[in-house]
Amino acid sequence: MIGKKEFPLSQVYGLLEPGPVVLLSTARAGRLNVMPMSWHTMMEFVPPLVGCVVSSANYTFEILCKTGECVVNIPTMELARKIVACGNACGRSEDKFKKFELTPIAGAEVKAPLIAECYANLECKVVDRKLVTKYNFFVLEVVKAWTDPRQKRPRTLHHEGEGVFFIPGRKISLPSPKTFF
Amino acid sequence: MIGKKEFPLSQVYGLLEPGPVVLLSTARAGRLNVMPMSWHTMMEFVPPLVGCVVSSANYTFEILCKTGECVVNIPTMELARKIVACGNACGRSEDKFKKFELTPIAGAEVKAPLIAECYANLECKVVDRKLVTKYNFFVLEVVKAWTDPRQKRPRTLHHEGEGVFFIPGRKISLPSPKTFF
Repeated sequence: MIGKKEFPLSQVYGLLEPGPVVLLSTARAGRLNVMPMSWHTMMEFVPPLVGCVVSSANYTFEILCKTGECVVNIPTMELARKIVACGNACGRSEDKFKKFELTPIAGAEVKAPLIAECYANLECKVVDRKLVTKYNFFVLEVVKAWTDPRQKRPRTLHHEGEGVFFIPGRKISLPSPKTFF
Repeated sequence: MIGKKEFPLSQVYGLLEPGPVVLLSTARAGRLNVMPMSWHTMMEFVPPLVGCVVSSANYTFEILCKTGECVVNIPTMELARKIVACGNACGRSEDKFKKFELTPIAGAEVKAPLIAECYANLECKVVDRKLVTKYNFFVLEVVKAWTDPRQKRPRTLHHEGEGVFFIPGRKISLPSPKTFF
């Protein structure tokens, strides 16, 4: 995996807990797709479980239902315009990887592609569909995780609505409560 | 509601989507409780639905199961030490509102208290318990929302794990895709 290093599954919560916008990538019958997503939450530390909402209006919903696989890619601010553009395009009628010059790389455990330009990539399998019909809510298990070790302080994007995002500012370190989340 | 202004339910997603640490407050038989939480996600815009994980090891879990009501309070960095302290104390044996000098105010729709020191307060009712047994995952409906209009740029806390938080930094505004989340 060029430039990527395997990341411990037990630490994945720290990547998603602060609420970054992610790019959800999928594949079916050789066709790739990608959409931005901010409605996700950690649900368990080990194995890491992630709950997320994917609107049934999105092409990704259909692929996710059929393949049960995806990759949660965490982009940084350098990709901001591409992220927004991905949210405004439809993967049913065009190849967003090509259109927005995103580089797909093969995963180790899933057929969905990792996005090379993102600093972290979480290979996921759908493990619970009980809330899909009512809320479009999928429970994913992260089966393999990768990060780019060169990015020491990734400037993730956090969506406040209507196209306004912030990136992480000042850090605060407080005595660590093991039970905190 | 002293210093608080009712906040439109349709805008609630913008408060929670970027992943702030929240304080979840509950009440049962006149006893108040509060715990910090970072594992939450929006699930619907209107009415606003919020999914969240509350460990069954926490006293809050028991109250939430029994009363079906809570308040999601959004604190700012001024409360950082109290938030961490709340995560390390147990509401079963002590009154955390008194111990950490948090001011409870009565809600309009729920018996759980709002925390006066927090810049936003979302009164919630549990509307789905299907994933509670397996994942400790509750679906909440926000039935009334309040914010402090004096706080124009609240410095929310975003937990990266092991007691490290960041506050929002630089903002980025991009053309708004209505479908983005």
